[in-house]
Amino acid sequence: MVSVEIERLISLLAKLPGLGPRSARRAVLHLIAKRESLAQPLAKAMAEAADKIKTCSTCGNLDTQDPCSLCADPGRDGAVVCVVEAVADLWAVERTASFKGRYHVLGGTLSALDGVGPEDLNIPSLVARVHAGGIKEVILALGATVDGQTTAHYIADRLAGAGVPVTELAHGVPVGGELDYLDDGTLSAALKARRPV
Amino acid sequence: MVSVEIERLISLLAKLPGLGPRSARRAVLHLIAKRESLAQPLAKAMAEAADKIKTCSTCGNLDTQDPCSLCADPGRDGAVVCVVEAVADLWAVERTASFKGRYHVLGGTLSALDGVGPEDLNIPSLVARVHAGGIKEVILALGATVDGQTTAHYIADRLAGAGVPVTELAHGVPVGGELDYLDDGTLSAALKARRPV
Repeated sequence: MVSVEIERLISLLAKLPGLGPRSARRAVLHLIAKRESLAQPLAKAMAEAADKIKTCSTCGNLDTQDPCSLCADPGRDGAVVCVVEAVADLWAVERTASFKGRYHVLGGTLSALDGVGPEDLNIPSLVARVHAGGIKEVILALGATVDGQTTAHYIADRLAGAGVPVTELAHGVPVGGELDYLDDGTLSAALKARRPV
Repeated sequence: MVSVEIERLISLLAKLPGLGPRSARRAVLHLIAKRESLAQPLAKAMAEAADKIKTCSTCGNLDTQDPCSLCADPGRDGAVVCVVEAVADLWAVERTASFKGRYHVLGGTLSALDGVGPEDLNIPSLVARVHAGGIKEVILALGATVDGQTTAHYIADRLAGAGVPVTELAHGVPVGGELDYLDDGTLSAALKARRPV
């Protein structure tokens, strides 16, 4: 019989992706052992995030301000919009530190199987944003999955009349990758997209 | 550039055992998506646990009360004490629902390599508890590791003069285990400890 407070903390922690009941129990013991250096600051940070973080009404990013700090940053190029599926993908692109434009977070991909249509995603707001003018390129940074590519083609179609170039990420050999271990599809795409040295 | 609040939450979550930076990022997005059903209750439960949970001065268990609910429960047999290395092991024994005595949490094992001596563990308090009388059996539920077995032998020696039987967990084939996959040491121990059917 474990105390109610501990049981409650375990069952809530076990709901986080990546933590099961066993690792949640281990995490709780760690939290109680480090209550001042970890449990209290973490509880505070979590309450603050739950309270303050909102979705940017322009691009769909998460931030404490709306428009988000990326949309509000005058140092970023508003003429280039990078379209991503989710906020996690926006973070991934930001970590590369090689993109200085703005973003548009779709909130998922089109999926006939799961019944996700264009109006369930932030596609209408993307179309409106492009038609409002001032945008010179739309980069589709979507997953190389069936749903990701379907969504990319759909968006390219919808934006066809706007006169704005739509690009997608290059496919090819991952940096550090060995040809021997590469799947056929990627190797074939890299061969087709070969470039002069 | 992710907001400071999100960065802070990610870096604190990544300190939990079982979560790295990648799974911490995924957990934060999950927490923000479920702020009312998960983030807010979790923050509250964590702050409460950090505030209220203390170590039982009798047995070393974690609880909101001291003596803990197990030591205070008159329905449990105070004459049988199960000695475990850590609170996680106490929880494991409790989950079996097959032990109705009391516990004593050592807080680790003796380890010459790590410089852990008897006075660094709750061994003096165990000896005092046994000598205080009223205890009819001490069960050593320690790990079948070198350090666990060293600790078990040391405790058995220290309690030798007290006239209280000291027992240890049985070694043998795990329930559901196949002989073919069992290590030699376990199989040999199970053979030596064979019992009439």
